[in-house]
Amino acid sequence: MLLTNIHRIYGVRDRSSFLRGKEMDKLPYLENAWLRIKGERIEAFGTMDQLPATMQDAWIIDASGRLVLPAFCDAHTHVVFAGSRESEFVQKIRGATYADIAAAGGGILSTMQAVRKASEQELFESSWLRVRRMMEQGTGALEIKSGYGLDLANELKLLRVIRRIREQAPIPIRATFLGAHAFPPEYRNDREGYVNRVIGEMIPAIAKEGLADYIDVFCEQGFFSVDQSRRILEAGIKYGLRPKIHANQLSSSGAVQLGVELGALSVDHLEQMNPEDIGDLKDSGVIPTALPGAAYFLRASYPPARAMLDAGLGLAIATDYNPGSAPSGNMWFNIQLACIQMRMTPAEAFNAATINGAWAMEVADHAGSILHGYLANLILTHPIPNLESIPYAFGENPVHRVMIRGMWV
Amino acid sequence: MLLTNIHRIYGVRDRSSFLRGKEMDKLPYLENAWLRIKGERIEAFGTMDQLPATMQDAWIIDASGRLVLPAFCDAHTHVVFAGSRESEFVQKIRGATYADIAAAGGGILSTMQAVRKASEQELFESSWLRVRRMMEQGTGALEIKSGYGLDLANELKLLRVIRRIREQAPIPIRATFLGAHAFPPEYRNDREGYVNRVIGEMIPAIAKEGLADYIDVFCEQGFFSVDQSRRILEAGIKYGLRPKIHANQLSSSGAVQLGVELGALSVDHLEQMNPEDIGDLKDSGVIPTALPGAAYFLRASYPPARAMLDAGLGLAIATDYNPGSAPSGNMWFNIQLACIQMRMTPAEAFNAATINGAWAMEVADHAGSILHGYLANLILTHPIPNLESIPYAFGENPVHRVMIRGMWV
Repeated sequence: MLLTNIHRIYGVRDRSSFLRGKEMDKLPYLENAWLRIKGERIEAFGTMDQLPATMQDAWIIDASGRLVLPAFCDAHTHVVFAGSRESEFVQKIRGATYADIAAAGGGILSTMQAVRKASEQELFESSWLRVRRMMEQGTGALEIKSGYGLDLANELKLLRVIRRIREQAPIPIRATFLGAHAFPPEYRNDREGYVNRVIGEMIPAIAKEGLADYIDVFCEQGFFSVDQSRRILEAGIKYGLRPKIHANQLSSSGAVQLGVELGALSVDHLEQMNPEDIGDLKDSGVIPTALPGAAYFLRASYPPARAMLDAGLGLAIATDYNPGSAPSGNMWFNIQLACIQMRMTPAEAFNAATINGAWAMEVADHAGSILHGYLANLILTHPIPNLESIPYAFGENPVHRVMIRGMWV
Repeated sequence: MLLTNIHRIYGVRDRSSFLRGKEMDKLPYLENAWLRIKGERIEAFGTMDQLPATMQDAWIIDASGRLVLPAFCDAHTHVVFAGSRESEFVQKIRGATYADIAAAGGGILSTMQAVRKASEQELFESSWLRVRRMMEQGTGALEIKSGYGLDLANELKLLRVIRRIREQAPIPIRATFLGAHAFPPEYRNDREGYVNRVIGEMIPAIAKEGLADYIDVFCEQGFFSVDQSRRILEAGIKYGLRPKIHANQLSSSGAVQLGVELGALSVDHLEQMNPEDIGDLKDSGVIPTALPGAAYFLRASYPPARAMLDAGLGLAIATDYNPGSAPSGNMWFNIQLACIQMRMTPAEAFNAATINGAWAMEVADHAGSILHGYLANLILTHPIPNLESIPYAFGENPVHRVMIRGMWV
């Protein structure tokens, strides 16, 4: 397929490297350009004045006025779940506290109950629709966590559903084991008992089936302590699972430092970052990942993106898609929040959502950029004058069509 | 046209009255319902078990699983403008202050320059595309302000464009004269001189041509003072223009009290409301109108909707569509902000965007509700289980199709 007369192709590079600090404000583009896809890969691209005279294709698409962008790499989601929690959303508007909702059987444990009741097939079918919808909205690579089963059988069930999605979806999928997402009711009064089950029972069983790429922990005061988190993550590392950490969502708790200590792939959330946390991440190789939609939906403060970027860090952004705190897998809206609420420039936000997201899930060698031989996972927009207009016109959906592996979704 | 098997029709009433306090949390609906449109009006509706056996129509549409809602009544916009200000948006992200942007020729005066340069035809064509897009997104009644001309000829030009839109658009349009939107550069050092021009020259000329329904003022410390605003609005009242006021956006300045004193139709913005302001609005008949998108885009505090509702006030919400502080005419997103950020329930937010918006632009006798004989201005959603799911699933566009005067847009 040959796209011609493209107003601008953004994210054109000759190699992919994780972007930090000032590098993030550069999103290279070609103007008045063409792009050829062969099979499922990007074969070649250039400007129209240098379109080879012999270049032909059975499918030639005139993209006049339109932008082409690399598809998003969403490196933090909980998209495999059952049930819906809009009634809890309304209860919270009416003033219910976290404790009120928990007492009424709501919160994360209500999703746990729904997941435990659902069959693997039911979970697969409902989750597949969400993944399909995310692809339609422009997502071309996806990380998915378990963490709503909270016992061996149900965590295995979730990870098997993720495996089925990985087998069926045309986009790269990464699987993360998040048994330490919450304490299940069976262990309410024996938290150490649950930590021991995660370490002694779940991790070995999951590793045996090869169901996960990463291991994650909700490390927070009142949830999994830094010490418990360290033990769980170290157990995972022994089985070949690289850590990711839910860090500093509610407090500066030492989770960031734990991530640095253990060489985590990413530390995610980061709503509460003090200058020491930012300093400790510098030169660590750990990728800070912001989840703007969760802060928005919870009316929390946003991660201090400006301070992190100005300190020279690189950022990824992801949706955190889950039924409680971020019921949306729309990366466009997260980019918009990053620009309007977190004061990231449009170039910084798009880089965070594409190339840096790809690094945060280790798919940067074939996704997240417009590069020769990379997967043809692309977004073709409506006619739009420039990248900056996308978050500026905040009520519009810029997507005309999305291409995954060379096929229109 | 006959819609059948509608999952729910929301906003069904037997009469329209402005909703206040606890009334706003009730959005009546019919479940498993039908709705018949005859010509451009709503003819009848009911539940499927009571569908008259003789009811037939050449067009029968199965709306299984879908919701029907009254189209939005957007009672505060500046949608007639020229130029775009996304570069200023990026400058602000990079830390430019209001003063920096003004010094670089940006801000409201850059839109004024673009409007003064544009012909009436050019203004009409670009603005018409925006109005058309708003209808596609579900807006079924619209108020539009002048205020980017800031001299007689150009304010007349803007109001004539609004008149052309009113003549061409199938939705009710209300026109508001906002000569007192800012001080033009010619009067930078003679503010009283500009006030006198608005009063002595512009208002009479506009009234003579019958170009406006309402008169509005940006009443704020450092802009039009309460005294200047009073004189302008009183002059408008003499010519039959009912006041609306840009009030309490930056400070609790006395603008709300001026609105009460003059019997304004609405006071709009209200980001800065103290308990006295809220108390003074009670039983005043003046409609408080929140503009969530502007607070969002400016990273300002939101109007204290919860406090106003709990004090028994009614609220309208509108988009404030303009190129500087709210470049979007999407009412769905404003409803979502009202729920997620301002803690209005979905019912309160939808009522604010429909029936109460209709009252804030005096179209409530034919728009804003599902009522016998009202304009068939409706939204048909994708399959959605309930109203609450709309703001909850915050990255989704719920619109399947929009009907205006009985025709699909």
